[in-house]
Amino acid sequence: MDHPRITIIGAGNLATRLAVALYEHGFCISRIYSRTADSAKTLAAMVDTDYTTEIPHIGTDSDIYIFSVKDDALPGILKQLPPLKGLLVHTGGSIPMDIFAPYSDSYGVFYPLQTFSKTRKIDFAETPVCIEASGEKELKQLAALAESISRHVLPVNSDRRKYIHLAAVFTCNFVNRMYDIGAEILQQQQLPFDLLQPLIDETAAKIHSLSPFEAQTGPAVRYDRSVTEKQSALLNDESLKTIYELMSKNIHQRHLSNR
Amino acid sequence: MDHPRITIIGAGNLATRLAVALYEHGFCISRIYSRTADSAKTLAAMVDTDYTTEIPHIGTDSDIYIFSVKDDALPGILKQLPPLKGLLVHTGGSIPMDIFAPYSDSYGVFYPLQTFSKTRKIDFAETPVCIEASGEKELKQLAALAESISRHVLPVNSDRRKYIHLAAVFTCNFVNRMYDIGAEILQQQQLPFDLLQPLIDETAAKIHSLSPFEAQTGPAVRYDRSVTEKQSALLNDESLKTIYELMSKNIHQRHLSNR
Repeated sequence: MDHPRITIIGAGNLATRLAVALYEHGFCISRIYSRTADSAKTLAAMVDTDYTTEIPHIGTDSDIYIFSVKDDALPGILKQLPPLKGLLVHTGGSIPMDIFAPYSDSYGVFYPLQTFSKTRKIDFAETPVCIEASGEKELKQLAALAESISRHVLPVNSDRRKYIHLAAVFTCNFVNRMYDIGAEILQQQQLPFDLLQPLIDETAAKIHSLSPFEAQTGPAVRYDRSVTEKQSALLNDESLKTIYELMSKNIHQRHLSNR
Repeated sequence: MDHPRITIIGAGNLATRLAVALYEHGFCISRIYSRTADSAKTLAAMVDTDYTTEIPHIGTDSDIYIFSVKDDALPGILKQLPPLKGLLVHTGGSIPMDIFAPYSDSYGVFYPLQTFSKTRKIDFAETPVCIEASGEKELKQLAALAESISRHVLPVNSDRRKYIHLAAVFTCNFVNRMYDIGAEILQQQQLPFDLLQPLIDETAAKIHSLSPFEAQTGPAVRYDRSVTEKQSALLNDESLKTIYELMSKNIHQRHLSNR
């Protein structure tokens, strides 16, 4: 089974980029489901297939069903599923694999460790994909699928996957919000965000050769109190001020106890 | 005056990378000062010059004196200075220019917006340098110096520079600590930090084409409570748990009020 037929349940960022990557690698996407007709239609057009907004109508002739929806939404969707013979797979970092157990005995997880936006193409070949499956046969099937688009496929159980997802939230989602805070601060001074780009790029690049612990710089690690106090005073937003103070204290403590 | 003689006061990360960059661009470094003899000696050897650990012995024959020391340390150093005819410049993001006013009438600021580590070479050509000077003549002198190593030189006054420095702390120092937290989480699970590298690289790369606001992903922006609650519960360290909850709430609020 070189090219299994795949149904995609979801049309968000991850679902979109994954469906497009699979389609571009020659897979046949049988159908797209989204509860939002516009999203379903847009993605279906991108991968040359049909769409539905009704779970009972997702069809039953696929080999693999990939569920890429909000964690909160998955249980409600599973309850409405028609009986399916194919492999059921979700893409969530924090959802245990056995959420599928009541509905099938052929299931697994396909978790790509990456940040996805609908409009930005991802190099899937360089994206680690964590896989887990209910049995040997399913694991082989999932590995074949993952290896057809990524060079970094690794089996990871549900417990460790949770921690990988947690680390991803800190190093991607929280990092991005830090970029956004920087953008807000510069915008208030009518300065362009571009100014920070070389610094942001170097900060990401330097941890290829230094550990993040070794790479730490700034007033907090130097315990340069005259800077941290002045900087905290510049922040009017209470939430940002609290984040500033907590991060500064945390960095100082981290380097105090390890030096 | 194509190649002014330069004295470097300080031998930390920034002082080291700046001294080396100037030296490699043909400038003569007259002397290195550091209160730590080892640091002074190491840097002096790198730029083929002498060193001292005594401020009164820094010499008086340079055209430019660059002070790159902890903000807290600068006032004490200035008090010990011998009378100097050259241009006095500091590299601090948050120190007002007029800290030099009691000691000279020829002074300024040379603030490179970058993260520096002693062992990692920086592409100074791509590093924005914010300059400010006490007069027109000094500004020209400083611009010539800055433009000899960087393609992005911009005049910025002390007030706006403070905000640029604040934005840099969020987008570099706090970002790096987020990387470090990710590394700590993976290390506890005996997983290699490398796993996060494609995600970290893509997170930095994507804001070249999307604004950080548009680029935001993750459970907090989706308000996926079942994920954020489970993730917070995984964190045993109270400081990290507080950071997790604050950042999640802050991201949620940011996207609630702007959508």
